[in-house]
Amino acid sequence: MKFLKKGKFKILEKLQEILGKEKVLLEEEELLSYSYDASSLIRKPLAVILPEKKEEVVEVLKWIKKHQIPLTPRGSGTSTTGSALAHSAGIILCLSKMNRILELDEEERVVRVEPGVINGELKSYLKKFRLFYPPDPASMNFSTIGGNVATGAGGPRGLKYGTTKDYVLALEVVLPGGEILKTGPTTLKGVVPYNLTPIFIGSEGTLGVFTEIFLKVLPLPEKRVLFLSFHSLEEEPLELLSQMLKRGLTPASSEFVDKTSLKALVQIQKVKELLPLDSLTKALFFVEFDGTHLEIKDLVPKIERFYFEKGIRVIKAEKEEEIESLWEIRRTLAPALKVLGSLKIADDVVVPRKFMKVFLTEIRKLEKESKLPIVCFGHAGDGNFHVNLLFEEEKKEIAKEVREKILKKVLELSGTISGEHGLGYTKRTYINWELSSLQIEIMKKIKKIFDPDNLLNPWVKLPD
Amino acid sequence: MKFLKKGKFKILEKLQEILGKEKVLLEEEELLSYSYDASSLIRKPLAVILPEKKEEVVEVLKWIKKHQIPLTPRGSGTSTTGSALAHSAGIILCLSKMNRILELDEEERVVRVEPGVINGELKSYLKKFRLFYPPDPASMNFSTIGGNVATGAGGPRGLKYGTTKDYVLALEVVLPGGEILKTGPTTLKGVVPYNLTPIFIGSEGTLGVFTEIFLKVLPLPEKRVLFLSFHSLEEEPLELLSQMLKRGLTPASSEFVDKTSLKALVQIQKVKELLPLDSLTKALFFVEFDGTHLEIKDLVPKIERFYFEKGIRVIKAEKEEEIESLWEIRRTLAPALKVLGSLKIADDVVVPRKFMKVFLTEIRKLEKESKLPIVCFGHAGDGNFHVNLLFEEEKKEIAKEVREKILKKVLELSGTISGEHGLGYTKRTYINWELSSLQIEIMKKIKKIFDPDNLLNPWVKLPD
Repeated sequence: MKFLKKGKFKILEKLQEILGKEKVLLEEEELLSYSYDASSLIRKPLAVILPEKKEEVVEVLKWIKKHQIPLTPRGSGTSTTGSALAHSAGIILCLSKMNRILELDEEERVVRVEPGVINGELKSYLKKFRLFYPPDPASMNFSTIGGNVATGAGGPRGLKYGTTKDYVLALEVVLPGGEILKTGPTTLKGVVPYNLTPIFIGSEGTLGVFTEIFLKVLPLPEKRVLFLSFHSLEEEPLELLSQMLKRGLTPASSEFVDKTSLKALVQIQKVKELLPLDSLTKALFFVEFDGTHLEIKDLVPKIERFYFEKGIRVIKAEKEEEIESLWEIRRTLAPALKVLGSLKIADDVVVPRKFMKVFLTEIRKLEKESKLPIVCFGHAGDGNFHVNLLFEEEKKEIAKEVREKILKKVLELSGTISGEHGLGYTKRTYINWELSSLQIEIMKKIKKIFDPDNLLNPWVKLPD
Repeated sequence: MKFLKKGKFKILEKLQEILGKEKVLLEEEELLSYSYDASSLIRKPLAVILPEKKEEVVEVLKWIKKHQIPLTPRGSGTSTTGSALAHSAGIILCLSKMNRILELDEEERVVRVEPGVINGELKSYLKKFRLFYPPDPASMNFSTIGGNVATGAGGPRGLKYGTTKDYVLALEVVLPGGEILKTGPTTLKGVVPYNLTPIFIGSEGTLGVFTEIFLKVLPLPEKRVLFLSFHSLEEEPLELLSQMLKRGLTPASSEFVDKTSLKALVQIQKVKELLPLDSLTKALFFVEFDGTHLEIKDLVPKIERFYFEKGIRVIKAEKEEEIESLWEIRRTLAPALKVLGSLKIADDVVVPRKFMKVFLTEIRKLEKESKLPIVCFGHAGDGNFHVNLLFEEEKKEIAKEVREKILKKVLELSGTISGEHGLGYTKRTYINWELSSLQIEIMKKIKKIFDPDNLLNPWVKLPD
């Protein structure tokens, strides 16, 4: 890749000529607001491009090939790993303005969208048709479908509904040089090409720029009910889930909030008003069920009996607003954590469900040893823990050591170091801890097929 | 690829030395029984290898690399497209003896199997644990999980449960040269590598040999109920499905049996005994629902009312044996078709659900014009029709023309020319009717990553 120096403005001005000045941001203050994502990194790009249609994306991707300029595609920039940043030698292609819902086929239950559509807005739109797009990352009110696909986003609903990969039927992708690739058929089934679509899910902007996304959607469940329980033993919820599953009670969502997270949450006024928390509460557990009115009517007494038998304090929400306001507590958790430390290392590891308890015990041991707060909340349904280390500048080295111990433990327990956030810039150095050299070699070859000059987000995912 | 001539027996004898004589079949009569699959092709292989464990597969794949011998991996050989055949220059690697269920993790709901496990046997095994592997190709009592993965097999349950690709969590694959690749993490979620697993699903033995398959499984539904309806208008069932979905009645399976198929079915004694067919019946429609006892209790009167309102004659089966004996009718359909013609071209096209009726009308027009029987049954739930042309030798050319008209119509209706059988040998010449040259070029590059010498099933899927 060629780094721009003196001649850079000429080349960028050329791009302004092609797209129009308002779509190519070059001013310092404009660039600054695209220098962050939800990681703690700051990387100022050379330029920010704001395309409004596919043809403009094609022009940009021709241009980067011609001038060998690296490019990072992004949406709202909610990445926690630096995968939405362009570093100093590259440009940002922000797809937020390509945010149209292009077509809903109610009969086929397929919706075609542009990448900049906000997840939550798609949900609201579909609701009018009594349809439903399940993946629900905590960022869903801000994050885009394109970004969700690029990271393979999940959320609490993973247990019953899976993650983004289970809903992407096909993609239209623009490759460096401007070629447009349809990844596969848009029918509900199809085996003619190799199944290329999933390679792009979780590819973190390294393989192509999405311009259209075909998503499967489901009928909207008639009714939801949320149980939020309070636990004096921190690990109790992790056993609860397995006991529920054994009784044939399969939650739509389940979410674990640990002891250390609670220390941050209780400092939020809204949380204190909503939740009857006392000093004995060491963990919260959100469990939501959904289905027909009749199913829920049948389920509720069974679940109440389940909690009653175990002597667990629980509150139940059945109205949509109540349910949402309780989930809002969970969604405010990540930003609330800053009271525990001004710096953060955020991981999103996965272990097999049966090892969740062992893993939590290990985390508490490390917390005690290192004296650093370690939060460990997350999607218990698929064993996906959000492990966050909070610390101040002077503890940076210790934090790094602890983090590495955590990742090693995860791999020891047959887990994976990222369930839904990706590796980005912050975790790519650990890729060979998890993958074999054969796996990494194959990934590099796949990257080369789609992006032979290494222009697309070259700073993330793959090792240098 | 180097074609074996004189020296071939020496090389094959070398393989006998490595694996043991009983695992390398070389005798004419032994080879003959591996010269067929469920297509009408006959291709005698050079040799048939019957490995019993992973280490032997590794040895064979080292050997093919060294001697540049093409190899076709296969299971029970139920492929309808010739993808289980090895032609005269290659060998068959039959994985039927690698048929152990290696591990069931009940907590995680994941089962690890060898490729030779029969689909139906896995279902029976899981039933003991009240678990359930949904994909149900008509061949399920014979076909192997390895073959199901290699073709991306579906079945009537596609509507509610999806197809094989929705259940494969990860694969262990042996590549030419003997390297062992794990395609990804075996946790329920994970985005560290590019998502390699799905590339192998539907790859028709062209990318690697599966030695372990990790499958997600579901809780077994408590109760099933099957409705089988009789229609005097052939296209009626195709509208019925859409009306059911609109009323919020989502079947687990739905299966359409057309007018021409019925002509073959009524000639089977068992069918005549089981079904009250009369000359007015132009189509059958199987619709199965599953769920908890309570759900089914609630659903049944709603469905009965639905049929009653429409004045449709229907029978209902609630007992497991009754349900299975009715489904058996559907499963015997493919072999029953031979009464309509001694030769067959079998396609498994998919069109968007909303175009199913248009497509059927077109089929009847072509049937009338060509005077060849065209059956058009299949998985209405995902728009997947099994279109079979039946004919005698002298009509071969007409049949080919008609078939091409059908495939063109499918593509005109935004469909795909294969939903679950693959392209194999019989359909690969049509690949560029559906895919762009960019898509085909990318497929070739992917093939090259895993199989640079083009040794794995080089006769199928990709164009020459």
